[in-house]
Amino acid sequence: MPTPAHADFARLRVTCPDRPGIVAAVSTFLRAHGANITALDQHSTDPEAGVFFMRAEFTTPHLDLSRPALEAAFARVVAEPFGMTWSLDYAAQPAPVAVMVSRYDHALLELLWRWSRGEFPGRIACVVSNHDALRGEVERFDVPFHHIPVTRETKAEAEAETLALFEREGVEVVVLARYMQILSGDFVARFPNRIINIHHSFLPAFIGADPYRQAFERGVKVIGATAHYVTEELDAGPIIDQGVARVSHRHTVRDLKDLGRTLEREVLARAVRWHLESRVLVYENKTIVFA
Amino acid sequence: MPTPAHADFARLRVTCPDRPGIVAAVSTFLRAHGANITALDQHSTDPEAGVFFMRAEFTTPHLDLSRPALEAAFARVVAEPFGMTWSLDYAAQPAPVAVMVSRYDHALLELLWRWSRGEFPGRIACVVSNHDALRGEVERFDVPFHHIPVTRETKAEAEAETLALFEREGVEVVVLARYMQILSGDFVARFPNRIINIHHSFLPAFIGADPYRQAFERGVKVIGATAHYVTEELDAGPIIDQGVARVSHRHTVRDLKDLGRTLEREVLARAVRWHLESRVLVYENKTIVFA
Amino acid sequence: MPTPAHADFARLRVTCPDRPGIVAAVSTFLRAHGANITALDQHSTDPEAGVFFMRAEFTTPHLDLSRPALEAAFARVVAEPFGMTWSLDYAAQPAPVAVMVSRYDHALLELLWRWSRGEFPGRIACVVSNHDALRGEVERFDVPFHHIPVTRETKAEAEAETLALFEREGVEVVVLARYMQILSGDFVARFPNRIINIHHSFLPAFIGADPYRQAFERGVKVIGATAHYVTEELDAGPIIDQGVARVSHRHTVRDLKDLGRTLEREVLARAVRWHLESRVLVYENKTIVFA
Amino acid sequence: MPTPAHADFARLRVTCPDRPGIVAAVSTFLRAHGANITALDQHSTDPEAGVFFMRAEFTTPHLDLSRPALEAAFARVVAEPFGMTWSLDYAAQPAPVAVMVSRYDHALLELLWRWSRGEFPGRIACVVSNHDALRGEVERFDVPFHHIPVTRETKAEAEAETLALFEREGVEVVVLARYMQILSGDFVARFPNRIINIHHSFLPAFIGADPYRQAFERGVKVIGATAHYVTEELDAGPIIDQGVARVSHRHTVRDLKDLGRTLEREVLARAVRWHLESRVLVYENKTIVFA
Repeated sequence: MPTPAHADFARLRVTCPDRPGIVAAVSTFLRAHGANITALDQHSTDPEAGVFFMRAEFTTPHLDLSRPALEAAFARVVAEPFGMTWSLDYAAQPAPVAVMVSRYDHALLELLWRWSRGEFPGRIACVVSNHDALRGEVERFDVPFHHIPVTRETKAEAEAETLALFEREGVEVVVLARYMQILSGDFVARFPNRIINIHHSFLPAFIGADPYRQAFERGVKVIGATAHYVTEELDAGPIIDQGVARVSHRHTVRDLKDLGRTLEREVLARAVRWHLESRVLVYENKTIVFA
Repeated sequence: MPTPAHADFARLRVTCPDRPGIVAAVSTFLRAHGANITALDQHSTDPEAGVFFMRAEFTTPHLDLSRPALEAAFARVVAEPFGMTWSLDYAAQPAPVAVMVSRYDHALLELLWRWSRGEFPGRIACVVSNHDALRGEVERFDVPFHHIPVTRETKAEAEAETLALFEREGVEVVVLARYMQILSGDFVARFPNRIINIHHSFLPAFIGADPYRQAFERGVKVIGATAHYVTEELDAGPIIDQGVARVSHRHTVRDLKDLGRTLEREVLARAVRWHLESRVLVYENKTIVFA
Repeated sequence: MPTPAHADFARLRVTCPDRPGIVAAVSTFLRAHGANITALDQHSTDPEAGVFFMRAEFTTPHLDLSRPALEAAFARVVAEPFGMTWSLDYAAQPAPVAVMVSRYDHALLELLWRWSRGEFPGRIACVVSNHDALRGEVERFDVPFHHIPVTRETKAEAEAETLALFEREGVEVVVLARYMQILSGDFVARFPNRIINIHHSFLPAFIGADPYRQAFERGVKVIGATAHYVTEELDAGPIIDQGVARVSHRHTVRDLKDLGRTLEREVLARAVRWHLESRVLVYENKTIVFA
Repeated sequence: MPTPAHADFARLRVTCPDRPGIVAAVSTFLRAHGANITALDQHSTDPEAGVFFMRAEFTTPHLDLSRPALEAAFARVVAEPFGMTWSLDYAAQPAPVAVMVSRYDHALLELLWRWSRGEFPGRIACVVSNHDALRGEVERFDVPFHHIPVTRETKAEAEAETLALFEREGVEVVVLARYMQILSGDFVARFPNRIINIHHSFLPAFIGADPYRQAFERGVKVIGATAHYVTEELDAGPIIDQGVARVSHRHTVRDLKDLGRTLEREVLARAVRWHLESRVLVYENKTIVFA
């Protein structure tokens, strides 16, 4: 939330074995090089022998080093001694995002609309669909639309075409905005913890096809939507966020779908924003979300 | 909610094949015999060839027939022609309720506490526990407490003892307020759709043991509690109500349990109240709740 | 929710002094003329000497009278004896709706988008704005856009022009989708309980201008949005629905506005749908919503 | 949430002008003296010229100084150079809490029950009431109960008696669990930001008496409860937390009160826990809650 409107800031994410002195080391390093920390979150699975996670947001106008030099220094002075896995990204360089979609437009339009308003901390580089239906909606936002059909026979070819496109566009994050094809393990492996899917149920309930019908059949009183990273196992990747809505016996399957669209839009938009603001860390198939 | 404070009213529940004229027939009958309808709800799975459900609340001071005569007349004049399954109960005769509990006190205390405040439209006839730990808490409310231990060897015997007790006490509704034993199919069959359990997860996710740990392992961002009728299949009976709460990576399993207790208390108390006010109808393993 | 997909049904709303026999009279009348009641709700402020409210949905294909004849018969046989205020409308004749908007597009787009998907039980006849900014967005949906500027000097004239337009278009319902001008009492009086406004706070907190800033200054932990009917007194009309979202010290005024947009869209869309499905009755500046 | 079960930890709260280097200074100091930071939160009203807030939780078993020496060193080395207002407290020394109550028992019982379960990070030193009604409930938990009646004439005297009692008991925090007397400005001034009240509405709506009736009259669709610090101005102090519940036209004033009790219990218990875990900082009549 508290993101400054200007873009002169960076975000550091760190994962390492927990031990005393991590915060002191990171904050002292940043202070020494002219960065002012404006947000800092940390989490530990166990202060004794656990894993430590940290996110810091800091201003960059007064850095005394170039970015490569800063990163090299951080690696040598802080990251290596503490055994850190880490990443650093800059608000001024928003990540190129590809959106994949099939026929349902609601999740896609929500992202495009927020993006067009400046509420989306990334750059929508392209939209890929296995149908041509939403071309007009997408091109109206001046976003390139690519129709890449998929059949059982052409799936490998279609994925290759998509990956080639993503490479050309420098895509770093893939959002599945109700994309109804299952991606291959090879495709998924190219974007580890960088493919975000919206599943239209409260996972782990109702994995797989037609979850609203499953929810209707079971007679639940609350429905949900789940944004998660895609892994090889269907609907089993790390959960980023979930949303819920109360329902009753009066709701038909169609009503659940109508109500669910609002949930899906909201949960997906929030999860994508958190990802693009580098608020999400993944560890052992779970997420740490510094929201 | 809109239950009058006084007790001179009755509740009628009806299930039958949908066809024109049901509401007219029921309301005309009640009107003719001096009842004033103060609440009426209906639901149909399909107006063409579906199943129709109805609940009416009506005042009883001006009835022109005795209760047995009214029921006989309703059976003959309305229920038979429409092929109704129906029941009629009177607020002045609150159902005797048995609560079964193991060691956790929170759900039990919530029920006892609401009952002692007059917020509970039933009569708590007795509490049965497989431990003796909560005797003092229960007897303080002047409710009989029965310690009936259960082991693998004595389970059949313990159930028989419990059923005998329930028969003596005229128990009509059984509430499992975190009772950690699985009831036999025979026991369950004695109280069809009249045993209410609180399961400490958002069913159908996390069926079975230690659901908060399961939720923690899966890394969900919302936890839940589910009140449902007990059927032979574990945690698969008709859902009466569900409640949810947002959680994050900061919540330990213990935190989830703490947070869950509040959910469990609230969801169970609401479900029991709805049941005792005859607001719940069951059809094909789902509930219609006229709340 | 349970609206049939087809349009061969009607909705009856009734308000009258409570007394025995109302449901029987209405349902018997409808039954006698070939209507099948598919939904029925009622409410009474007090069964003894209160006010009774009722809504019935019924199928129309087998009516034995023309609509005018049915209405005349209902008036004579049922409404007059019971002193009813009542209205009857037909799903096949959706109400013409005008949307008024200033510069913010989110509430307007939500309505247009739902309407274009068939999720909106009315017909958007026109959009009126005191700015020309959103013309393109509106015309893309093939909806006429009228730019009617308003200044202190031209306000009366602008309102007259708007009313003339509404008369030509047969507008029955006016939705203020973040329209930032205050309508005159005369204008409001032309559409009693038929102008729906979305106020961007949890009324009655933060009446008037810039409620998100007011909420920020007060340091609330939950923000809200309120859909209500417009009356002469500012932000004091009958509340149709409200929605809320948790916030913290981390939310800036801008964050509250971002978050609030989602609330406003959802609450307004729901309130407008309920109104257009004739689910809302007004009594003594409060609503009865048979949702 | 992530409070370790053991008590060998401390909590530091800091407020000071924002400028670079604060986190580095604090974390380096703690590190140097053997403390391991297990939680750290910070917030700034504006990184350029704003106010900075910070909370750190750290382990104490390996401190190289006595507590007084540590505090003296922190004051000299860190707090003075940065112009900090700060406090340090130790989990092993839970704050003595007094609860004040009138006739309604629900909020009081919730606190006592949580306390008896070990879910309450303070010590309930005594309960004071202007009625004698709840003596038995309180004494059952082995908590001293003091009946101090209040009339218009005896108010000053009663407050003096209460303050004398609090002094004897070393009371640091006062919780008003539906205490229906208004405390004098002098009394309030003795416990700045240390008297927590539960107001039974969604402040700032419905200030003052009988807020559920006010909510009913206004016809709101959501009700709330608000925990806040008491200041001289009625119901206008810094808000710690708020909770809400949906309601409809079916809810009578009595229903709102029933529903509200659950809200009040939950919101008050959460706010008191946050306060006792030193998660709440106050600035300009608003709270920063590091929850």
